[in-house]
Amino acid sequence: MGEFELLARMRERLPRTGARLRLGSGDDAAISLPGGATATSVDALVEGVHFCREQAGLEQIGHKALSTALSDLAAMGAEPGEAYVVLGVPADLDEEGCLQLLDGLAELAAATGTSLAGGDLTRAPVLTLTTTVVGHAESASDLVTRSGARPGDALVVTGELGGAAAGLLLIRDRRPGDVPSLGAAQSALSGGTSDALVARQLEPQPRLEAGRALAAAGVTAMIDLSDGLGGDAGHLASASGVGLRIDASALPLAAGVADVAEAAGVDPLQLAVSGGEDYELLAALPAGKLEEATAAVGAAAELRLTQIGEVTRGEGVEIRRPGGELLKATGFDQLR
Amino acid sequence: MGEFELLARMRERLPRTGARLRLGSGDDAAISLPGGATATSVDALVEGVHFCREQAGLEQIGHKALSTALSDLAAMGAEPGEAYVVLGVPADLDEEGCLQLLDGLAELAAATGTSLAGGDLTRAPVLTLTTTVVGHAESASDLVTRSGARPGDALVVTGELGGAAAGLLLIRDRRPGDVPSLGAAQSALSGGTSDALVARQLEPQPRLEAGRALAAAGVTAMIDLSDGLGGDAGHLASASGVGLRIDASALPLAAGVADVAEAAGVDPLQLAVSGGEDYELLAALPAGKLEEATAAVGAAAELRLTQIGEVTRGEGVEIRRPGGELLKATGFDQLR
Repeated sequence: MGEFELLARMRERLPRTGARLRLGSGDDAAISLPGGATATSVDALVEGVHFCREQAGLEQIGHKALSTALSDLAAMGAEPGEAYVVLGVPADLDEEGCLQLLDGLAELAAATGTSLAGGDLTRAPVLTLTTTVVGHAESASDLVTRSGARPGDALVVTGELGGAAAGLLLIRDRRPGDVPSLGAAQSALSGGTSDALVARQLEPQPRLEAGRALAAAGVTAMIDLSDGLGGDAGHLASASGVGLRIDASALPLAAGVADVAEAAGVDPLQLAVSGGEDYELLAALPAGKLEEATAAVGAAAELRLTQIGEVTRGEGVEIRRPGGELLKATGFDQLR
Repeated sequence: MGEFELLARMRERLPRTGARLRLGSGDDAAISLPGGATATSVDALVEGVHFCREQAGLEQIGHKALSTALSDLAAMGAEPGEAYVVLGVPADLDEEGCLQLLDGLAELAAATGTSLAGGDLTRAPVLTLTTTVVGHAESASDLVTRSGARPGDALVVTGELGGAAAGLLLIRDRRPGDVPSLGAAQSALSGGTSDALVARQLEPQPRLEAGRALAAAGVTAMIDLSDGLGGDAGHLASASGVGLRIDASALPLAAGVADVAEAAGVDPLQLAVSGGEDYELLAALPAGKLEEATAAVGAAAELRLTQIGEVTRGEGVEIRRPGGELLKATGFDQLR
């Protein structure tokens, strides 16, 4: 099957969702009708750097490529619009494999109301997925950047943390010969909990509804947690010119994280702080809006919103245990 | 230098052109203020597939990555807006190399009024540049697709053809031991002509002004010549549901193409028809608008507009020599 024929077969599978898309894949460019402002983000997943085909199915890889890109739109509070995907296809991936990747992309696109509006195929030495996502808003002021947090704001996080890192430990433990062995954790966890942790790693969900609810509720700054709470909080603090004080005991750990951490001999809080890839949203907002924001996120996305700290006049990020001990947000690079 | 530090250094070099860009690189997403309709295209250059670092400088590679993407916007008649670039960086490319790539991108961005609005860096086994470009128009009907050509329309092409393919032959000839040897051509060509052919291959120019002039002059269908006239004309014919009859003797060959072709023992018309990468524009338009379109392209871009054929009720593409002999538009794959 040639490139053009494969592209044609891929186009047939694309869901044509989204009223904004006027002309999809197949011309020199896609045509869309934007809102008053657009938010655009690009993201790449490279085999051997961001994923291994031994650990994730092709549909999951497709899902994750779009999910991590859409997570950036969630962090802007944007309405998802169009996605464009460039597939770098290695010699050992056949056309059926390309279509499986597309199925993973297309399923998430349909679920989120995103139009797969275009893309490209090229040969490449390893499987590479580069995704561009475009989100919309009525005006630029409706979009939330990282830079508006003010001293005194409350710091909140959606959902639960540490699950993706724990899931990665479980996945790696499945490979024979790897250490540490998490047999203790595997037997302590119910199958459902274990599967949920693995899914947090392999099939993250972009928090689009929560992001829009938070934007509407008046958050002053927002970022998605891709690198890990410690690092991403640092980006938000730096962009806003403020400090962040985080109470480690307030962090909402995902079910099973404590068990996996214990079996692996690591601190569960480190999984939450430095593990990364939870793709939850971290936001700052005036304390008086906390209640409204919590209700809005619950109603829009059935997600918890947890206050984990506050914005200060200082700089940088302090994450402290209840006794006041500073929890280091570094030194967990072996997970990445 | 870490990824974040390199990204910060790269951001410092970005020209902040374009009134539409409200927030550039450094947040979760860029924010722009679009027109009534947007044209979006993605394109990838992969080392070993689309370029070799032995044959092209890093600035030239950066230039070409943006240029080939912008060429798709030219073919829509769109106003260039924003570009987003994902760099896949191999282990043997240092930070200085990344900045050279960016310089090539930034120079063309500034020259075309394109904002380099965002991007990403990742490790990769070979150098990879994935570029997303967004163009704007007042309304979707101002953008030109491939699908509107009507029987009786004139078929026109901007500029000159075959130069990029001839340039590639000259570049390859510089490598010792390669055949065919183009010594005869090299000595027949002036240095300026030879350099111009090489530049056509390594530093193609997107025909943005010409594309907008043609759109304003009422072309019915347009495509940029990336794969070669034969293939791209086929795409336009297929999308429009028409046939195209092209007069090979009318093709505007770039200066020096005949000399290079003769030395290489190939048909110069094949370089024009199948060589590809000229990034000129092929368009259909009512014959009554030819004069106005020619004047508009000359005024906007100082480029020739040449009628090379016409749109018919048939299907497919016929390229004929003056005597009526069919010129095959295939069989030149060794150039790609």
